Amino acid sequence: MTRTRRVTIRDVAVRAGVSVATVSRVLGGDYPVLPATRNKVMRAVRELDYVPNAHARALSASLPGAVAIVVNSVAVPYYAYIAQGVEEQAALEGRLSLICTTGGDTGRELAIMQMMREQRAEAVILVGSVIVDEEYRQRMAEYAHSLDAAGSRLVLCGRPPLGEGVPALVVGFDNTGGAYAVTAHLLSAGHRRILYLGLRPGHSTSDSRVAGYRRALADYGVPADPALEVKADFSRESGYAALSRRLAEGPPDFTAIFAGNDLVAAGAIQALREHGLRVPDDISIVGYDDVPPAADLGLTTVHLPHDELGRAAVRLALAREPAGPITLGTHIVVRDSVRPVTP
Amino acid sequence: MTRTRRVTIRDVAVRAGVSVATVSRVLGGDYPVLPATRNKVMRAVRELDYVPNAHARALSASLPGAVAIVVNSVAVPYYAYIAQGVEEQAALEGRLSLICTTGGDTGRELAIMQMMREQRAEAVILVGSVIVDEEYRQRMAEYAHSLDAAGSRLVLCGRPPLGEGVPALVVGFDNTGGAYAVTAHLLSAGHRRILYLGLRPGHSTSDSRVAGYRRALADYGVPADPALEVKADFSRESGYAALSRRLAEGPPDFTAIFAGNDLVAAGAIQALREHGLRVPDDISIVGYDDVPPAADLGLTTVHLPHDELGRAAVRLALAREPAGPITLGTHIVVRDSVRPVTP
Repeated sequence: MTRTRRVTIRDVAVRAGVSVATVSRVLGGDYPVLPATRNKVMRAVRELDYVPNAHARALSASLPGAVAIVVNSVAVPYYAYIAQGVEEQAALEGRLSLICTTGGDTGRELAIMQMMREQRAEAVILVGSVIVDEEYRQRMAEYAHSLDAAGSRLVLCGRPPLGEGVPALVVGFDNTGGAYAVTAHLLSAGHRRILYLGLRPGHSTSDSRVAGYRRALADYGVPADPALEVKADFSRESGYAALSRRLAEGPPDFTAIFAGNDLVAAGAIQALREHGLRVPDDISIVGYDDVPPAADLGLTTVHLPHDELGRAAVRLALAREPAGPITLGTHIVVRDSVRPVTP
Repeated sequence: MTRTRRVTIRDVAVRAGVSVATVSRVLGGDYPVLPATRNKVMRAVRELDYVPNAHARALSASLPGAVAIVVNSVAVPYYAYIAQGVEEQAALEGRLSLICTTGGDTGRELAIMQMMREQRAEAVILVGSVIVDEEYRQRMAEYAHSLDAAGSRLVLCGRPPLGEGVPALVVGFDNTGGAYAVTAHLLSAGHRRILYLGLRPGHSTSDSRVAGYRRALADYGVPADPALEVKADFSRESGYAALSRRLAEGPPDFTAIFAGNDLVAAGAIQALREHGLRVPDDISIVGYDDVPPAADLGLTTVHLPHDELGRAAVRLALAREPAGPITLGTHIVVRDSVRPVTP
């Protein structure tokens, strides 16, 4: 049987009467090119139906070669930055990538997984904090097995491993280590009454941060006080509401706040302002994630290599060989939201 | 020929021994449900291979019923919020949605469009500022015609219409009106030397904002000064760099800044701080978009209904009837970044 030779970038250059470098510049889109030149090149691309090499694999009948990342919402920077990393790495590896959002809806997640399995996506990356219960483990195990059967791979990002025998890869952040470090940062500044704002019992991400907070308190010989662990979802609104309620009950019985993430911290800072409390003069505060608006708030926080997590997930999935869980380190970013306690 | 009856939510409820309300609560995922109950329901879902109604359409062989949105990057709030609106509306209309990012790479855009055409996505929504030249018009016209031929629809978001005969729908913001209003806001406060930071000749979005800026100046009888229109990409880094260069040349020859978007404004505010200039005491500044960190910076800006743009794009695409361009209005959000000029 005969196979038509694939059109190359050289064919396009010849047809357009320009250099190969010019063609790749035009397709790359990141250099200024004269419109007339762009016209010639894009016309040649269309006439020859040229498929840029890096994307050829993704253009077969279905989606093999495509990498899908599934998140709750792209309007949350934490997810958006991880997705960004996935797409950068996918592009480097010659894959197209798709972002799907569930809005936290299990039905939508199920529909997305079924579609990706039918489309034989090369890898499906699930991101985000979850309630780890038996139903969750069952659901994930079934996703993993059915994707595996379809020649696709499941990668869990920022989620606990599913255990032996389940064909799922795992990459995550060292949340306990980061939480330990930032709590120790407050303790070293003399703080002893540190409010943890963002308790979400059962949620994997928050739980691992609370664990680091408690461990640091223990290592500094500070008794953990359940009254200092306050529930809040990982949203700005929730952080604002939870701290506003707390401050309405009376003057703060804490000198510092460890917010579950930067959005919670932003909401908390707004609540502090409205109660006439200054940061850091009256109350010190730290966040987690190092996403906007952390820098603009001068917030000391824990930096997470979001894009690197996304890239690692893609590299792991495409390596096509078994690998144990990968945990990426974190580090504190010190800004202006913490002041030492003067006894 | 026989057709097997579709499994309904009622069947799942019966199998799981719970109410229909409980099943939809479990699948909805937005109410707390006992793990044991979730287990029963999800097991029934799996055993019956139940496909939540809202997603049934998206689960046929290919992607018909899926809505794709194509943006440069989801790490940019402007895009993320529009994508969010697309997905909310798509879910409401029983479609799955996919986000694809190009990284501004024409080759990736081409590959994505080819994939979506092959997969017969129901609608493809292209978002973002572009250089409108002949090559662009040709490329878009071909996307529009080939998607149309495949029974899919092309929607351009925040981009100019392609003209008669091209089967593309258009939704956008009234950028000229918003820029006029926020410039008039500065002029009413007595400012006459207003720096426009974010000139990008040929870029549709920036051009429409500059047009509103110039028109407002004209209506207030203030001669436009080309020296006050400064180039900057729509990024924080670019805004910071461009204003830093300007301030390094000497003391500001302006009393107010109109930043092309909020990210540029954030970078500009950082540059002002580093030059010992206070906002708004020394320099007033306004932004555009009303996305983070606008609120945290107390930035007066132009609010864009991002999510509504995304929803409108989906409604328009699924209406399956021709419609003229839709333009969504904008409004100013007044915060604390503008102070009246005292002569």
